Amino acid sequence: MAQKPSIPKGTRDFSPEEVVKRNYIFEIIQSEFKRFGFQPIETPSFENSSTLMGKYGDEGDRLIFKILNSGDFLKKADEKALSAKDSLNLTSSISEKALRYDLTVPFARYVVQHQNEIEFPFKRYQIQPVWRADRPQKGRFREFFQCDADVVGSKSLWQEVEFVQLYDAVFSKLGLEGVTIKINNRKVLSGFAEVIGEQDKLIDFTVALDKLDKIGEDGVKKEMREKGISKDALIKIQPIFNLHGNFAEKIEGLRSILEGSETGQKGIEELQFIQDAINEMPLKTANLDLDVTLARGLNYYTGAIYEVAAPEKVKMGSIGGGGRYDDLTGIFGLKDMSGIGISFGLDRIYLVLEELELFPATVTENTKVLFINFGVKEALYAMKAINMLRGENITAELYPDAAKMGKQMKYADKRNIPFTVLAGEEEMEQQKFTLKNMKSGEQSNLDFEGLSSILK
Amino acid sequence: MAQKPSIPKGTRDFSPEEVVKRNYIFEIIQSEFKRFGFQPIETPSFENSSTLMGKYGDEGDRLIFKILNSGDFLKKADEKALSAKDSLNLTSSISEKALRYDLTVPFARYVVQHQNEIEFPFKRYQIQPVWRADRPQKGRFREFFQCDADVVGSKSLWQEVEFVQLYDAVFSKLGLEGVTIKINNRKVLSGFAEVIGEQDKLIDFTVALDKLDKIGEDGVKKEMREKGISKDALIKIQPIFNLHGNFAEKIEGLRSILEGSETGQKGIEELQFIQDAINEMPLKTANLDLDVTLARGLNYYTGAIYEVAAPEKVKMGSIGGGGRYDDLTGIFGLKDMSGIGISFGLDRIYLVLEELELFPATVTENTKVLFINFGVKEALYAMKAINMLRGENITAELYPDAAKMGKQMKYADKRNIPFTVLAGEEEMEQQKFTLKNMKSGEQSNLDFEGLSSILK
Repeated sequence: MAQKPSIPKGTRDFSPEEVVKRNYIFEIIQSEFKRFGFQPIETPSFENSSTLMGKYGDEGDRLIFKILNSGDFLKKADEKALSAKDSLNLTSSISEKALRYDLTVPFARYVVQHQNEIEFPFKRYQIQPVWRADRPQKGRFREFFQCDADVVGSKSLWQEVEFVQLYDAVFSKLGLEGVTIKINNRKVLSGFAEVIGEQDKLIDFTVALDKLDKIGEDGVKKEMREKGISKDALIKIQPIFNLHGNFAEKIEGLRSILEGSETGQKGIEELQFIQDAINEMPLKTANLDLDVTLARGLNYYTGAIYEVAAPEKVKMGSIGGGGRYDDLTGIFGLKDMSGIGISFGLDRIYLVLEELELFPATVTENTKVLFINFGVKEALYAMKAINMLRGENITAELYPDAAKMGKQMKYADKRNIPFTVLAGEEEMEQQKFTLKNMKSGEQSNLDFEGLSSILK
Repeated sequence: MAQKPSIPKGTRDFSPEEVVKRNYIFEIIQSEFKRFGFQPIETPSFENSSTLMGKYGDEGDRLIFKILNSGDFLKKADEKALSAKDSLNLTSSISEKALRYDLTVPFARYVVQHQNEIEFPFKRYQIQPVWRADRPQKGRFREFFQCDADVVGSKSLWQEVEFVQLYDAVFSKLGLEGVTIKINNRKVLSGFAEVIGEQDKLIDFTVALDKLDKIGEDGVKKEMREKGISKDALIKIQPIFNLHGNFAEKIEGLRSILEGSETGQKGIEELQFIQDAINEMPLKTANLDLDVTLARGLNYYTGAIYEVAAPEKVKMGSIGGGGRYDDLTGIFGLKDMSGIGISFGLDRIYLVLEELELFPATVTENTKVLFINFGVKEALYAMKAINMLRGENITAELYPDAAKMGKQMKYADKRNIPFTVLAGEEEMEQQKFTLKNMKSGEQSNLDFEGLSSILK
């Protein structure tokens, strides 16, 4: 019986136009990754559950898609959980595999598993889909691509510099000028908590600070008070809210705020290094800005923290982010392997390019010329020409059936094919082709050379 | 606690070298798909189970990876199946989604769901992974890519011709000369069953005939007898085993064997059409052959059946296959939508190219030059040059740390980076670079222009 077809919520079909536009973005990101010396790896779509579970917190565990064991899976099911109808505790006994939740944990697993084949520092990029059982909403999907570039095996600050340049290179190439690469440093955040005497509340402190954009200064302070941060501490951090000006001026402000914190000073030094290098090698189209409120899943990052904002005229969350994490592979038993990486948000970049009309018109071009089908003999004459055009890298097609001419013309029109060729008996006798420009309606009688030179 | 990392059986990690080689194949297939006027679509990795289940037979259903419902999945579990510990009947109540098993059923679903946005005939290609819970073995994986091109909405035999040309174009572009494109027609097989009076045993008949390569003529006959095909019938089909010679000669042989079958004659006509067209437009490097034993999941195909064999010097199963299916979208309620398509077997093509050493050496080239890091000032000098080289599309890298020179050189060596640049105080003063050819050991003192012209 026929079913009305649909797809699972939070997933998407991509039409030809969407695929080519997405591929346009992928290809630019990929070519810049390569130019910067990153090498591609790919990992399986599903991992052993033990590789993924416990790496993203309880909420993350919940959002990981689990794959049901094949065959008679109940045979090995946990009896107790089964009879208690305890879904949570039953899961691990009926599901051994799970869909990739991000590219970072599989990358860490890859590095540890293949450590003897890898030359460190290892610069890798990875462009693959990930899956999350999140509640779908506008711009949030259950299947989406991540585009990550990471280096592991060195703590050199030149990498911090290079990732700023990489962001600039990609967005410049995409024609997306005026993005802001916001940068911060975990050590600066730790320094804040230190100077106000609230080291043990670092997370609460930064989570609140991170919301400055959304809830304003008073909101941040209110949340900090609710989390038990003292009034006294709030007075001490007041200068954070007064940091203004350009990168250099903000750094100066930080110096005095963090005077008492060694960690904080180290963070400033790192930021200064990046700023100095970028001053010496100016960015093409992006702006670099220091944003001391930036935290982005603080638990993870240990040094630099990045986030990229779309140009101000577009309303859009961050279109990229990343940072340094000093113990990427520790969870899999390989210690002292510092990593730093960034990610590009494909779906949001797509929306921004769409909104600003930055996709080149050539991206969605497909077939250049459709040959009208007048019957078997004429079609063979057409196919021979089509073959030669294809040999010259021109996308040409034959309408497969000798349908009414109006139908064939309408098809060319609807598919936005710019040219049609009409070749009937007369043209065949003269070894010619009648080329029709579908926009202007203009027709010209041409030999093959003439045809191919116009279509090229 | 640290775990020893591993991946699920039947899945693979791909190293940088493997990814670039695979991408080389993908890119050639994709560029030929495009040149022939096919447009890309993408569908979600998982579909509603109802879309997939029942489309691949019982065995297929078993091999589909099911995704466990999120949250408290036992709440909606089938009580009866649960208490009977009946895994098979429990599945549909705790799993609503499943991983894509091939690209054809999702394509059919796509066509029906988006029928009002599509111009028919619709030529689409799709290159995405599929998943099967098959027992892993050499060359058989649980996750692998399919590369499919299909047309729906026309019964024109020019499409049959075009797919032969497409196979030839792709394999020629890959440098894989001498593949054999084997072709057959379901109507010829039906004709056989008809003339021997065993129409009701068509499947058994063709399944046995398909094994001729493996079990020989006697084996085929033995299997046919076991399936209840009469002795008399076997005598009648004897001429099938005596079909020899080239395409035209085999067709002549078929004509007399199938004299009594209208369906069979129709099949011959179709084969003749393809043969005539290819005679008029000779293939570049592939051979076209008629193979009347070819069946390939007969239930599916209604007209042409294709299979591509690697050049004889390589031992490998088929590296591609496909055919025409007259009712692709009927399962989803859209009738009279004939389709024809072919598929490329990425993993096997990879093995064949590897065995015949057909991957161009340039495919695995990555970074062209590594700048040795002598310290902060020198590194900045290097980074400026690296930026300029990247601007000229040369992949250049800085060794991130000012490590011992031997270590940095060894790194360049192990990564097969062909050049290193040494630039210390002296070079900086003269605005020069010392370029070292890692193979010859030769060193030259160059300005930036000289450096970039050698690296280009």
